[in-house]
Amino acid sequence: MPSRVYLDWNATTPLRAEARTAMLAAWELIGNPSSVHAEGREARRLVEEARATLAAAVGALPRNVVFTSTGTEANALALSPGLRRSSGGAVEQLLVSAVEHASVLSGGRFPADKVSQIPVTRAGVIDLDRLKALLGDGPPALVSIMAANNETGAIQPIAEAAGIVHGSGGLLHIDAIQALGKIPFDIKTVDADLATFSAHKIGGPKGVGALVLAEGIAGLEPVLRGGGQELSRRAGTENVAGIAGFGAAVRAALQTLPEDAERMATLRDSLENGIRGIAGAMVFADHVKRLPNTILFTAPGLKAETAVIGFDLEGVAVSSGSACSSGKVQPSHVLSAMGYDATVAQGAVRLSLGWSTEPDDINRALEAWRKLGNTLLRA
Amino acid sequence: MPSRVYLDWNATTPLRAEARTAMLAAWELIGNPSSVHAEGREARRLVEEARATLAAAVGALPRNVVFTSTGTEANALALSPGLRRSSGGAVEQLLVSAVEHASVLSGGRFPADKVSQIPVTRAGVIDLDRLKALLGDGPPALVSIMAANNETGAIQPIAEAAGIVHGSGGLLHIDAIQALGKIPFDIKTVDADLATFSAHKIGGPKGVGALVLAEGIAGLEPVLRGGGQELSRRAGTENVAGIAGFGAAVRAALQTLPEDAERMATLRDSLENGIRGIAGAMVFADHVKRLPNTILFTAPGLKAETAVIGFDLEGVAVSSGSACSSGKVQPSHVLSAMGYDATVAQGAVRLSLGWSTEPDDINRALEAWRKLGNTLLRA
Repeated sequence: MPSRVYLDWNATTPLRAEARTAMLAAWELIGNPSSVHAEGREARRLVEEARATLAAAVGALPRNVVFTSTGTEANALALSPGLRRSSGGAVEQLLVSAVEHASVLSGGRFPADKVSQIPVTRAGVIDLDRLKALLGDGPPALVSIMAANNETGAIQPIAEAAGIVHGSGGLLHIDAIQALGKIPFDIKTVDADLATFSAHKIGGPKGVGALVLAEGIAGLEPVLRGGGQELSRRAGTENVAGIAGFGAAVRAALQTLPEDAERMATLRDSLENGIRGIAGAMVFADHVKRLPNTILFTAPGLKAETAVIGFDLEGVAVSSGSACSSGKVQPSHVLSAMGYDATVAQGAVRLSLGWSTEPDDINRALEAWRKLGNTLLRA
Repeated sequence: MPSRVYLDWNATTPLRAEARTAMLAAWELIGNPSSVHAEGREARRLVEEARATLAAAVGALPRNVVFTSTGTEANALALSPGLRRSSGGAVEQLLVSAVEHASVLSGGRFPADKVSQIPVTRAGVIDLDRLKALLGDGPPALVSIMAANNETGAIQPIAEAAGIVHGSGGLLHIDAIQALGKIPFDIKTVDADLATFSAHKIGGPKGVGALVLAEGIAGLEPVLRGGGQELSRRAGTENVAGIAGFGAAVRAALQTLPEDAERMATLRDSLENGIRGIAGAMVFADHVKRLPNTILFTAPGLKAETAVIGFDLEGVAVSSGSACSSGKVQPSHVLSAMGYDATVAQGAVRLSLGWSTEPDDINRALEAWRKLGNTLLRA
């Protein structure tokens, strides 16, 4: 197979060398972190080092980091009806933005009749006036908003949302999975109450996520019960190597974030300008702040399914919406929420770049689109 | 640090070379298994290979294997109130043996008033007459029994239990985590309806488990919702490398099971006989069939906490009950269920062997016990 161009970094990233090294070292440790003997304590040390690294990276205390198996699990854990500030009453309803990941839209452990959706604008940004109106004089809500959308890359006004949510006596959960390592994120700066992260979006392994709590958040009900791991907030033997890899990836990603983001943005702009010039393509959410690496585009008559296969045959890995939705036949709920009809939503192709994307990748992707754009539209 | 003796294999095992190789290969794959491009399909192939391996090893169909992050998660998924045979009604109550792992004792998603415990004998074996009586003419039950106990090693009469459970219209879940790789286990031979497995007990990585269903079992409600992964039974990006490592470990473990079991049993007998001869030690569950690798023992006046630290300082890693319960202060629920009082239950030390345990490990463990036995008792 000739060398491929990988432009699906929002789905998953290559494993960073730093994560690989940390995981290889972790494999040498035989113990269970819950065991009290030397082997157990060594494994425990790795887990706690990673916890401290993630905590420091996002402005939290290590004791408020709960490692999970995925972002999905962290989101399920976050959407817990018993949540409250140490001093306050529990949240009684859940508001989620209409462009959240499926694991948030599912509502966690809130009964369906206690879950409402916050609309977004045509640019895919949460409508803060509608949020205010929804909170109204209602009971305290848990509000869940992603820091940046996984399909469009649109960055959400989470700090402004925090002010509104707290003003109404509610709590704010941020799904920061796509933000981590691409734009700065700090739970204290945002004034969020809970935040979700995932390792495999930043060069860590697949199979590790985390829920991070602000200090003073109580009432988190575990999803998985049994052993006393993760301060009894998540039972089950820890994925020691995976957690160590997550920690190493966080450290590496945050270290080079500014220059990575700048380089990605330059390449993204060049790719985006090129795409627009071919087959009448248009880019979604292009007038709002977006992640530096994400382009969601379509062209008149484009079928995303065909386009993804076409790009693949040209040696370019791209995606139609999120990988998590692949295999499901419905059009992107994100574009539907933005007011696009099903035909448009079924024609959206996502290109997402990463820290090792090179100018030549951009050229080859453009070459592929030049070749495919008109062919696919003619078909 | 001089070479250590590791006798805590029921907590976790070293990573097998085969698992290591499989995971290194998986790391090279950049894709998300849900992505349709070549990178995604390659990752998908690894996951499906592992699924086929585990399915074949335990007598199931690949489509009935659900990979999870831990045995705890697989148990939580198994204890699902909607379970039924394709043709029948859903189970309405849960019966769990009193010696189950904490993740089963927690009752999964059954309301607390629908969960009952099945007593065990003084030898730690489930009391089948009591099971029959509990099932009585009551509503159909999901019954959860482990194949072998993680603390005592006692093997449970699961095939007999299956006959009783099915006779009453119920379903049988087997936590087979400690059985896999140590004694033969086949879901069809046992006639179980669901079975739980964990990778890190057989030389696979920590952070991977699986729930396996018999053909024709329906109504499994996901614990984690969102993406359509695992045929919509477990949302979240798959731990691709971990799953590949699990598959490789299963293949390796099952290949050498008969000779490993024989060798472990010989070493275990030699260790057990030695232990008994020192400080008046007694071994739990010693008159019933046990795993070939497990010894749970105590001696008059022994404090397990002190003993574990004493062994550790002598270079021998042992455990007091299960690692999952470490950090919790209560005595072993297993020994309590067997009718031992708290003093005895707080004095139990577990030695568990593995495929690379050598005669010299046994000698060193005995030497340590010879030194510690009387010291600890005098203290």
